[in-house]
Amino acid sequence: MSPTITAFAKSPDGGKGLARDMRVRWALEEIGQPYDVRLVTFPELKQPEHRARHPFGQIPTFEDNGLTLFESGSIILHLAETHKGLLPQNADARARAISWMFASVSTVEPPILELQTARFAEGDKPWTPERLPLIFDRIRQRLGELATHLGDADWLDDAFSAGDLMMVHVLLRVAPSGLLNEFPTLLAYTTRAQSRPAYQRAFAAQLAVATAQYSPT
Amino acid sequence: MSPTITAFAKSPDGGKGLARDMRVRWALEEIGQPYDVRLVTFPELKQPEHRARHPFGQIPTFEDNGLTLFESGSIILHLAETHKGLLPQNADARARAISWMFASVSTVEPPILELQTARFAEGDKPWTPERLPLIFDRIRQRLGELATHLGDADWLDDAFSAGDLMMVHVLLRVAPSGLLNEFPTLLAYTTRAQSRPAYQRAFAAQLAVATAQYSPT
Repeated sequence: MSPTITAFAKSPDGGKGLARDMRVRWALEEIGQPYDVRLVTFPELKQPEHRARHPFGQIPTFEDNGLTLFESGSIILHLAETHKGLLPQNADARARAISWMFASVSTVEPPILELQTARFAEGDKPWTPERLPLIFDRIRQRLGELATHLGDADWLDDAFSAGDLMMVHVLLRVAPSGLLNEFPTLLAYTTRAQSRPAYQRAFAAQLAVATAQYSPT
Repeated sequence: MSPTITAFAKSPDGGKGLARDMRVRWALEEIGQPYDVRLVTFPELKQPEHRARHPFGQIPTFEDNGLTLFESGSIILHLAETHKGLLPQNADARARAISWMFASVSTVEPPILELQTARFAEGDKPWTPERLPLIFDRIRQRLGELATHLGDADWLDDAFSAGDLMMVHVLLRVAPSGLLNEFPTLLAYTTRAQSRPAYQRAFAAQLAVATAQYSPT
């Protein structure tokens, strides 16, 4: 039996790979693990059946052999612990890669989420146009620090890891704002990651959901 | 040699245990691991010496035997993997506890950070009084979902774990707003965690830093 993940039946980004199932699909492709996808509609996200998988009514989730997990970070860490290819063998390098996994969601993503909240939940508020530059500056601060750390290296630590996978996906979520273009180092970093065959297979798989959604048949 | 963590030389909360070194201190106390603390001033946080430990110039960090980690989540996970007492032995229960670790920083904390940002970085803006109720509602949504999951259980999964430790500390950061009082289940949950001797030792240790800071000598 293959594991089953959940994804939006109709992703708000229309298949641009920005929803968080993309991270898990990519990790599954990196380790060569086939998987099934259960598509969940917005109303279904908040129903008890899905809440039993994800207490906060979100995607992605992961089900395998009686185990149910939520949060992309913990799903990817679980895959990394049970398969080769996502974390270094060396114990110290492995712990450092996990620092980057947490940094992606805990330090870099929060101002990016704030931008999404400003645009969607507060998009009609009179203060939003004046607030956006403040949020941009908070995102820039994190991107600048990340670019400084990366320098001219290919990856955050010695080799590609789940830390890069998660960080790159967080960065791609801010790309539509144009902010990533201000940091050539980070643009090259995300492009490098996107050229990985596993990324491309995962991207195609999530795009196929959107394409089927909008097909005329 | 004991590991060394970093903490604020002068914590903005004046010793209320809300800074993120508290999470790591608590985890170290749970496993009975003595530790040293390097206090870092605000200017020092942004200096190269500290940036080498923490690329984003924050606390806490963790140094042990040549290994340097940042991010409270990854430090606590590292402690949990190398000592008993913070994660269940059963593999599935362990993976679920790690889901809660990620949920604490990735799903529950972001709206709480948004509240802090509104109060401090945007405290002087004319829109802030009108925005605060919107942010409160976003926090309430997460707290409500968490309270529903918890129900009348003592802990998020079968037994106390690093997932509870991190979630409780995130919740305590919103307690000063009064929002936690709206959720008796969560108030009982945080109180239950705060009664653990390890929590109390960690709290006393961080308070001692603030007390020494403000002592007249």
